[in-house]
Amino acid sequence: VNRPIDSQKQTGGMDLEEFRRLGHEMIEWAAQYLASPEQYAVLPATRPGEVRAALPKAAPEHGESLEQCFEDFQRLIAPNTTHWNHPGFMAYFATSGSPPGILGELLSAVLNVNAMVWRTGPAATELEETVLAWVRDLLGLPANFDGTINDTASSSTLYALAAARESLTDLRLRQSGMTGRELPRLRVYCSEEAHSSVDKAVITLGLGLEGLRRIATRPDFSMDPAALRSAIEEDLQTGVRPMAVVGTVGTTSVTAVDPIPEIAAICREHGIWLHVDAAYGGSAALLPEMRWILAGCEHADSLVVNPHKWMLVPVDLSVLYTCKPELLRAAFSLTPEYLTTPEMLQARNLMDYGISLGRRFRALKLWFVLRVYGAEGLRSMLRRHLQLARQLSDWIDAQPDFERVTDVKFSVVVFRHRPVGLTAEELDRHNLALLDRINATGEVFLSHTRVRGAIALRVALGNQATDERHLDRLYTLLHALSRANRL
Amino acid sequence: VNRPIDSQKQTGGMDLEEFRRLGHEMIEWAAQYLASPEQYAVLPATRPGEVRAALPKAAPEHGESLEQCFEDFQRLIAPNTTHWNHPGFMAYFATSGSPPGILGELLSAVLNVNAMVWRTGPAATELEETVLAWVRDLLGLPANFDGTINDTASSSTLYALAAARESLTDLRLRQSGMTGRELPRLRVYCSEEAHSSVDKAVITLGLGLEGLRRIATRPDFSMDPAALRSAIEEDLQTGVRPMAVVGTVGTTSVTAVDPIPEIAAICREHGIWLHVDAAYGGSAALLPEMRWILAGCEHADSLVVNPHKWMLVPVDLSVLYTCKPELLRAAFSLTPEYLTTPEMLQARNLMDYGISLGRRFRALKLWFVLRVYGAEGLRSMLRRHLQLARQLSDWIDAQPDFERVTDVKFSVVVFRHRPVGLTAEELDRHNLALLDRINATGEVFLSHTRVRGAIALRVALGNQATDERHLDRLYTLLHALSRANRL
Repeated sequence: VNRPIDSQKQTGGMDLEEFRRLGHEMIEWAAQYLASPEQYAVLPATRPGEVRAALPKAAPEHGESLEQCFEDFQRLIAPNTTHWNHPGFMAYFATSGSPPGILGELLSAVLNVNAMVWRTGPAATELEETVLAWVRDLLGLPANFDGTINDTASSSTLYALAAARESLTDLRLRQSGMTGRELPRLRVYCSEEAHSSVDKAVITLGLGLEGLRRIATRPDFSMDPAALRSAIEEDLQTGVRPMAVVGTVGTTSVTAVDPIPEIAAICREHGIWLHVDAAYGGSAALLPEMRWILAGCEHADSLVVNPHKWMLVPVDLSVLYTCKPELLRAAFSLTPEYLTTPEMLQARNLMDYGISLGRRFRALKLWFVLRVYGAEGLRSMLRRHLQLARQLSDWIDAQPDFERVTDVKFSVVVFRHRPVGLTAEELDRHNLALLDRINATGEVFLSHTRVRGAIALRVALGNQATDERHLDRLYTLLHALSRANRL
Repeated sequence: VNRPIDSQKQTGGMDLEEFRRLGHEMIEWAAQYLASPEQYAVLPATRPGEVRAALPKAAPEHGESLEQCFEDFQRLIAPNTTHWNHPGFMAYFATSGSPPGILGELLSAVLNVNAMVWRTGPAATELEETVLAWVRDLLGLPANFDGTINDTASSSTLYALAAARESLTDLRLRQSGMTGRELPRLRVYCSEEAHSSVDKAVITLGLGLEGLRRIATRPDFSMDPAALRSAIEEDLQTGVRPMAVVGTVGTTSVTAVDPIPEIAAICREHGIWLHVDAAYGGSAALLPEMRWILAGCEHADSLVVNPHKWMLVPVDLSVLYTCKPELLRAAFSLTPEYLTTPEMLQARNLMDYGISLGRRFRALKLWFVLRVYGAEGLRSMLRRHLQLARQLSDWIDAQPDFERVTDVKFSVVVFRHRPVGLTAEELDRHNLALLDRINATGEVFLSHTRVRGAIALRVALGNQATDERHLDRLYTLLHALSRANRL
């Protein structure tokens, strides 16, 4: 189909021959890169300021060639990038953009659709509705859960809590706000282990950090429902008004699963909005044997899951589901005259469900990924990661000087090196130093956390290309560097 | 460079040969499409629900080919898309993603970097700092303006107002919030013509719609600074606390320019945060002859400009500049242990400047666009659009039965058809009917607004490929359909 482009049609100064030539080169580069991201160190050796220093201080006055840009990308950007595609990336939550996801992004950028209202992107709007129903059904969520795509889970959680605030209809917050009158203190509850995005959301919504109460966790780091009940009852007795509970399915630090059925029962009893943060863990519910993690979520008012984390979709794509979309709309919908359209009553306008008016066509990449892998393809990837995590966990358990600090429920293993004779403080320093040595190899990238006050290392398995060979290499490095590194 | 990919390296179930083959096909399709988007109707004839009905009700259980996905994209998505690339797209703010911008997005998706902290994306973080300094300097903004990339102007304005709220340090809002104690009513001011994102932001931040005071405009639709001063003084006398003023450079409805120097003086006098919404208009300041539009903005505390609107960058990419980044950080930074890094004190962590923790590598496309077009290339595009708007404006003025309703300061022309003998209400209906007929042709897509209560049509020139031929066609359609359409 390599028809020549009619040069008469090259309008507006677009050089489409250069686009073709460089586009093809980039596809070739991408294929080679994705075949062997290990040609790069996973964590580059660059120091802060080095890339900036290598760039000109001002934009060029006259245009340069796209070829030069691509050369500079290969020379300056790719080598100074942390390679999330590297199978040794095991930090935070490891993720994978996949070939169909990448090409979906390419086509979205080509169309450059801004689906703020149905009229400005009919296919984008309806494809979003459709693929989010697919994902909902694959996860076993109720059919009345309505989804919208956001950039990240932080936005999804903010929007969910904004809807929760809007559900306090007697306070007329959308109209009158929270200042200039005295309102009861509003409170959100989450566990000690919940993500910092909950703090960010309560600050943004005007509740302040004191508007968030962190509930104690049980030995497995899940929220203690008895402590939640006590906190709510204590608040009610002192005139505080509970606004929402955020339960987590797969916490960031140690992937704990809060007891959603018990939490949901408490919320129902008191009429409190329940938001579930399943940003990372939720994807695992694609597996029948993991479906238990979403037990109770049928009673949630909202739930976030991030296909860009563990569903092979390139960043960014977070999904917020809610059975109360009318409250999400009440929190965010505003239609000035210039955005009214004839289809307003028949079709969804995506701008009504969050902060952003402009909306990139993100559903396309999710559609491609779901179709190319199929439910079974995604399940086999998830099972591989869960299996690798069990292998690592078994290995840790077999080492006398390493200690696993939590159960492995998903694909994250949290542990520490524990040579005898070190104080707690020395152990922290020792493990952070071990982390630095491992990361300095460029072969593996781990991150750390603090568990019950003590530093622990995290291995997150989520890269599509990670396999036993990379775990073997990790074992070798852990052995060698934990010994080299003794205090 | 078409080296074969070592099949041994095709790990994790990625089919990279299929990626290459379809990637090349998509580049060819994109080149043909960008050369002649007019092969499609700009506004598709699809009705609400049609695309949804054509899609399966469930995700496939087993994987399908990428080729099939691409075929379905061409069959179902592209024809049912509103074509923002079509040179007849003159609705809202017409935009253009450009070849270098598209390929920048492709490479971002390939790298799949999540630059939440410096460590997870050193090049992405420092390229963002660098290109935002380039844009700042090109626009003539002060050197102490510090930029961050957000998805859209709605987010940028929300973040700016969150920083403004944080600037009221005595209220300790981040810590204590707005409920459970009596605070003075906080107020934000903007003109009657300011964008609805200001309303969305005040609702989200807990000020409520009553926390926003819309200031009367002068005959040219710009904010009346005397009315602003009165409103602030009246508020102060009644115990209301002014929090921020939002000035607009290029309003959405009629592209009015608020008198920023006068507004800035009032803000300085009362110590009020000044945020400038230059999302659309700001780009025009790349032109020396248009630099006046940002006069006074050197005294602003924050300013938003959207390169995805009028700087050839594909959606989404909005830039928030502020001379008080420490307040933006105070509003949004939260660093749990698992996100601490050794470089925290030496390098910027982009997650600290907004809601989102995860951050796509958006700077790459902006870098490519700035380099491939150069400052002069962007200026020539801007001048072409301004010139087209003047031509259209002159044509309107020459027609006895059309009436231009505002000055043309940028590339948007607002007008109405005004046949004699119609009442105000009939004129509104007549113009909306005319709009529908024009849009139904599939050749041109216009939107409407309401100006001083009356419906008007908007022609926004911002597509890279729009030229005189498309204006000529617009004239023909306006002539023919305004007559065919008489009540």
